[in-house]
Amino acid sequence: MTPDQLLQGLLHGTAPVQRRAMAKSITLLESTRADHRALADELLTAMLPHTGQSFRLGISGVPGVGKSTFIEALGLYLIGQGHRVAVLAVDPSSTVSGGSILGDKTRMEHLSVHPQAYIRPSPSSGTLGGVAEKTRESMLVCEAAGYDVVIVETVGVGQSETAVANMSDMFVLLQLPNAGDDLQAIKKGVMEIADLVVINKADIDAIAATRAQLQITSALQLLGMHASSGHMHGDDSVWHPKVVQISALLNQGVDTFWAAVSEFKAIQNKNGRFGIRRQQQALSWMWERIDAGLKQNFRAQLRVQSLLPQLSQQVGAGQLAASTAARQLLSAYQAQS
Amino acid sequence: MTPDQLLQGLLHGTAPVQRRAMAKSITLLESTRADHRALADELLTAMLPHTGQSFRLGISGVPGVGKSTFIEALGLYLIGQGHRVAVLAVDPSSTVSGGSILGDKTRMEHLSVHPQAYIRPSPSSGTLGGVAEKTRESMLVCEAAGYDVVIVETVGVGQSETAVANMSDMFVLLQLPNAGDDLQAIKKGVMEIADLVVINKADIDAIAATRAQLQITSALQLLGMHASSGHMHGDDSVWHPKVVQISALLNQGVDTFWAAVSEFKAIQNKNGRFGIRRQQQALSWMWERIDAGLKQNFRAQLRVQSLLPQLSQQVGAGQLAASTAARQLLSAYQAQS
Repeated sequence: MTPDQLLQGLLHGTAPVQRRAMAKSITLLESTRADHRALADELLTAMLPHTGQSFRLGISGVPGVGKSTFIEALGLYLIGQGHRVAVLAVDPSSTVSGGSILGDKTRMEHLSVHPQAYIRPSPSSGTLGGVAEKTRESMLVCEAAGYDVVIVETVGVGQSETAVANMSDMFVLLQLPNAGDDLQAIKKGVMEIADLVVINKADIDAIAATRAQLQITSALQLLGMHASSGHMHGDDSVWHPKVVQISALLNQGVDTFWAAVSEFKAIQNKNGRFGIRRQQQALSWMWERIDAGLKQNFRAQLRVQSLLPQLSQQVGAGQLAASTAARQLLSAYQAQS
Repeated sequence: MTPDQLLQGLLHGTAPVQRRAMAKSITLLESTRADHRALADELLTAMLPHTGQSFRLGISGVPGVGKSTFIEALGLYLIGQGHRVAVLAVDPSSTVSGGSILGDKTRMEHLSVHPQAYIRPSPSSGTLGGVAEKTRESMLVCEAAGYDVVIVETVGVGQSETAVANMSDMFVLLQLPNAGDDLQAIKKGVMEIADLVVINKADIDAIAATRAQLQITSALQLLGMHASSGHMHGDDSVWHPKVVQISALLNQGVDTFWAAVSEFKAIQNKNGRFGIRRQQQALSWMWERIDAGLKQNFRAQLRVQSLLPQLSQQVGAGQLAASTAARQLLSAYQAQS
């Protein structure tokens, strides 16, 4: 199908035609073949005016925190409210493991078969940057097809959380009612990028859940105080990260969660940060792809490839200054290209 | 002076000749002029066989933690033990402020006038990467001149701590006896890169200092347990970060501190990590300079400069996909260069 046929399928297709167009569009965008890349750019440009109208919700949490159960409960709740829900995943480990999340749609058995839901596992294209780029583009496909809530799920390990936060309007961190966990989240810098922290499985131990809520709330205040002290004094048009308790298994608290999300959306729209965040995300995405492309071209160049092993060896052995080696490689690169 | 004359001054000069050669070498290495850069590379390469024998100690802490007092006490203690001590600084803010640390040598009034000490303020060359590169090269000059302990100081803000940790054999974090601080340090990811945490000003409140020591010790254990759980079980040839209390003002605990440093050195030498760390640092320094050079060349290219404003504007406004803009800019760059 041509990019235009794909776009027509996305925008105006009947349910089965639309689903097929989505799958084909995402496959095209994920392709690394040069001729596909040109078609993919054509599709992206044609699609763009029809994107951006969804709410992009990033959700993270360590394995075992109950992400699938939560997303299934949330997705069904939202469909009940008249929304159409897409679920994407960012899992850089999927190249190796075949996908630790969402590889198996049966994990969300009711949501995955619902006609108003679209679930897609993580692309397995290697680097985190590559996986993130493909997921961002898949998000645009879902938006063109009229999904108005796009959930991007990631595992709570490594830098995938930052990548997902950088493509989300709101980033939510799922935690267990366990005191030790918040230190881990702070350590990885994920607590400070969370707009909302959800304590899941609150049913298991109500006392622990409440203690965790208090601890994380005070940690968020302490982090926020230092990070943006200017906003702490009386500016109620600014969102302050909060902590809510839920039990996805018992289907309790999903409405509370969505009320917090709606409050966040309203505040971010009112103070203009919703648009600013998207603008910054788009520009930093552009620079990220430029940097990745520059590095890739550099490493692929024959002259660099022929010099690199020996210079690296000399630098590692302390026989050549790192900055001298860098200058030699850069001028070799510039001379050839 | 030629690179060879500078090197002779560094290696064999009398005290005043050597100091002059150090200052001139560092000035040459800091110069951005292309002809200087070639001479600087010549000097670096000639110097390299005479470098690497010092112990490189990174020290960080927020303003007010007492870094200068601590470094003065430590420096004088080490000179008393027969060492020669150089003190460098990494302060990326110095471009703007004229230097918030070490701009004023009188902050270490006894150490700064000692013939066995060499103190140099932060270079003010703009970006953190640039400042860090110059400081790494100054470190080599100090080593060629026979300084066997090189202390690199940085302020506890921003990413300068990571930069200093990446050029140190051991990275030390100074903390106040204040419970809230450890959360900040964890947040910034600095606690987990610290090989040793020093609670300074322990004389002010002995109870608070001991409480802080316990808290930080347990935080370090929790961070370390997850970061490298393989090393936590009985492998006593691996260093485990510790916490010591001192009072630099009362000159108490400097010997305890140095004993911990010596223990660290012995363990790192025995298990081979001392050399591995230096090798990794040199290679990552090389790649850092390559990446910085690639970006700089890209942004300096005329065709990129002429396309960038309009494409950035379109990406920010959601009219052009970020990855499409990145591909357009990269192919424009490749086409011209």
